[in-house]
Amino acid sequence: MKFYAYNIRFLCLIIVSFLALIACQDRHTIENDLPSWNNNENSQRLFQFISDVSSKNNKLYVAPKDRIAVFDNDGTLWSEQPAYFQLFFAMDRVRALAETSPELKAKWLEQQPYKAVLENDMKALAASGEKGLIELVMASHTGNDSATSDEYADIVTQWVKTAKHPSTGKAYTHMVFQPMLELLTLLREKDFKVYIVSGGGVDFIRPWAEQVYGVEPENVIGSSVKLEYEYRNGNPVILRRPKLNFINDKAGKPIAIHQHIGKRPILAFGNSDGDLQMLQWTDANKLPHLSAYIHHTDAEREWAYDQDSHIGQLKQGLAQAAKQNWLVVDMKKDWRNIYPDGQSQ
Amino acid sequence: MKFYAYNIRFLCLIIVSFLALIACQDRHTIENDLPSWNNNENSQRLFQFISDVSSKNNKLYVAPKDRIAVFDNDGTLWSEQPAYFQLFFAMDRVRALAETSPELKAKWLEQQPYKAVLENDMKALAASGEKGLIELVMASHTGNDSATSDEYADIVTQWVKTAKHPSTGKAYTHMVFQPMLELLTLLREKDFKVYIVSGGGVDFIRPWAEQVYGVEPENVIGSSVKLEYEYRNGNPVILRRPKLNFINDKAGKPIAIHQHIGKRPILAFGNSDGDLQMLQWTDANKLPHLSAYIHHTDAEREWAYDQDSHIGQLKQGLAQAAKQNWLVVDMKKDWRNIYPDGQSQ
Repeated sequence: MKFYAYNIRFLCLIIVSFLALIACQDRHTIENDLPSWNNNENSQRLFQFISDVSSKNNKLYVAPKDRIAVFDNDGTLWSEQPAYFQLFFAMDRVRALAETSPELKAKWLEQQPYKAVLENDMKALAASGEKGLIELVMASHTGNDSATSDEYADIVTQWVKTAKHPSTGKAYTHMVFQPMLELLTLLREKDFKVYIVSGGGVDFIRPWAEQVYGVEPENVIGSSVKLEYEYRNGNPVILRRPKLNFINDKAGKPIAIHQHIGKRPILAFGNSDGDLQMLQWTDANKLPHLSAYIHHTDAEREWAYDQDSHIGQLKQGLAQAAKQNWLVVDMKKDWRNIYPDGQSQ
Repeated sequence: MKFYAYNIRFLCLIIVSFLALIACQDRHTIENDLPSWNNNENSQRLFQFISDVSSKNNKLYVAPKDRIAVFDNDGTLWSEQPAYFQLFFAMDRVRALAETSPELKAKWLEQQPYKAVLENDMKALAASGEKGLIELVMASHTGNDSATSDEYADIVTQWVKTAKHPSTGKAYTHMVFQPMLELLTLLREKDFKVYIVSGGGVDFIRPWAEQVYGVEPENVIGSSVKLEYEYRNGNPVILRRPKLNFINDKAGKPIAIHQHIGKRPILAFGNSDGDLQMLQWTDANKLPHLSAYIHHTDAEREWAYDQDSHIGQLKQGLAQAAKQNWLVVDMKKDWRNIYPDGQSQ
């Protein structure tokens, strides 16, 4: 009888464990996992895709090793208006460098695009064009005496801690999109490998991506400058040179994904025509996949822009998204919150 | 009394579970985990390092996210004599391509280094120098009509399945080092992130690295050719162009590690002067670390070579290893087995 009672108890324990397990598995809902997304057709499609590819008995199941998800950064994971945040970093850096050397400051006050930065003349800065902006970013990022990779990481870390966005007054890392943070967390819970694939500098993003997005340095792919290795009296350093190595934009994105990951993604998020090729490349995966655009439609809580914008232009992309039935997230309609603090810009 | 008995049983269950857990944790020994390594000073040092950095209460503990281990491939994970295996692939490929086109064959029979390959003239091939060899590898790898990345992966996969090494008659993937396979498995069990950092082509290694080494495509870093993205009627492809993009050798290795991983490794294995900078870079990590060389000392079971070898030359590396007390694995003394089949070459 004692043995019988023991077995009953044991059986109960097993049943309770099973129920707990089932409850545990069932806890994934849009409300629980994506609380900053409105429960509508778009969020349901996204949620269903993630659920399908990660459910072992689903016909759309994809093995964890192939669950590659790629995310553009500027305009997809954080805001990008009125200028890419990395440009604000470059400008702050030029100003800081000028303060360290009167000679450099004097020189720069006679040379564009530096003069425009030091005089805070955004119009002249814009007039210097893409070439001017790249020069600015190169000079500010590599320094006059070629910053080492370690020094550069420290400079970025310091800036991210202290700098404030000119129009919102928020720290730049507080202008990341709360709905996307929730999505990244859900994907990691579902054993996706989450990558950032950004036109921004890889070494500009890495120092804070882990803390802010939970994305480790090896999962950040970006633009880069030429590097040099130097063995300084037994202390090896990597030096950043003021020369572009790779621009991770447009056709560069699928190429970088191939070079870095060696597989096609099954999920890709972008927000501009610069992401179109990455979304095409994902859309041609033989495994179940989803290509998605974030459409900036919310002039009140963030910014509203697409085909006519000088930053994050989205024209061809919208056309192809409509034609191929990609997911197009409407920030105004689909997102309950924009930023983590729940405040608008 | 029944309740008391039940509690005793429950207590026993807990004690047994704990004992099982302890037994489980204690199962790691050189004999269990590295059976192809002789239990001596070298294997003990390696084993102790792995144990220290992965034991939470050890003062040398390193968090899993920083447990980056990098391995050269040729001569470190598989043999590299009498020529890099990728060169045999290139030669087989040139022969196969020549068979598909009489015009191409006629043309190549009058042009070095192709003539040397078609006539199996190793002396003339060697005389064509590094430039000739690179040309050969480029032509064979990209094809006349620029193979797509998918086509190239299929070609490599097929070759690896069927090709045999000229002097051992073994499949090339059977000439991997059994002691290193055991080490890779142990490192993964201890939550290391294992990377291959090879002078060989990244797209040559990826198609079989997962099956043979357990290393996924995104953890393979190598040399590369220029790639182009093309949107062919809605079917995007990546084309391989016959132009070098990056040579992942010598100072290129720490640079590629920085570009790809963004962190210094804590463990690095190489076998030649081409790995010296990677070992220096690892040796300068502020976290606990170990730089190690494989020394090819076994003329009977594999090949014996170092400072005078035309392949895998190891001279400066040995000097620096002695000076900085790096681990130098002596294949003859330290390895019980060389290849997985237990047979020598």
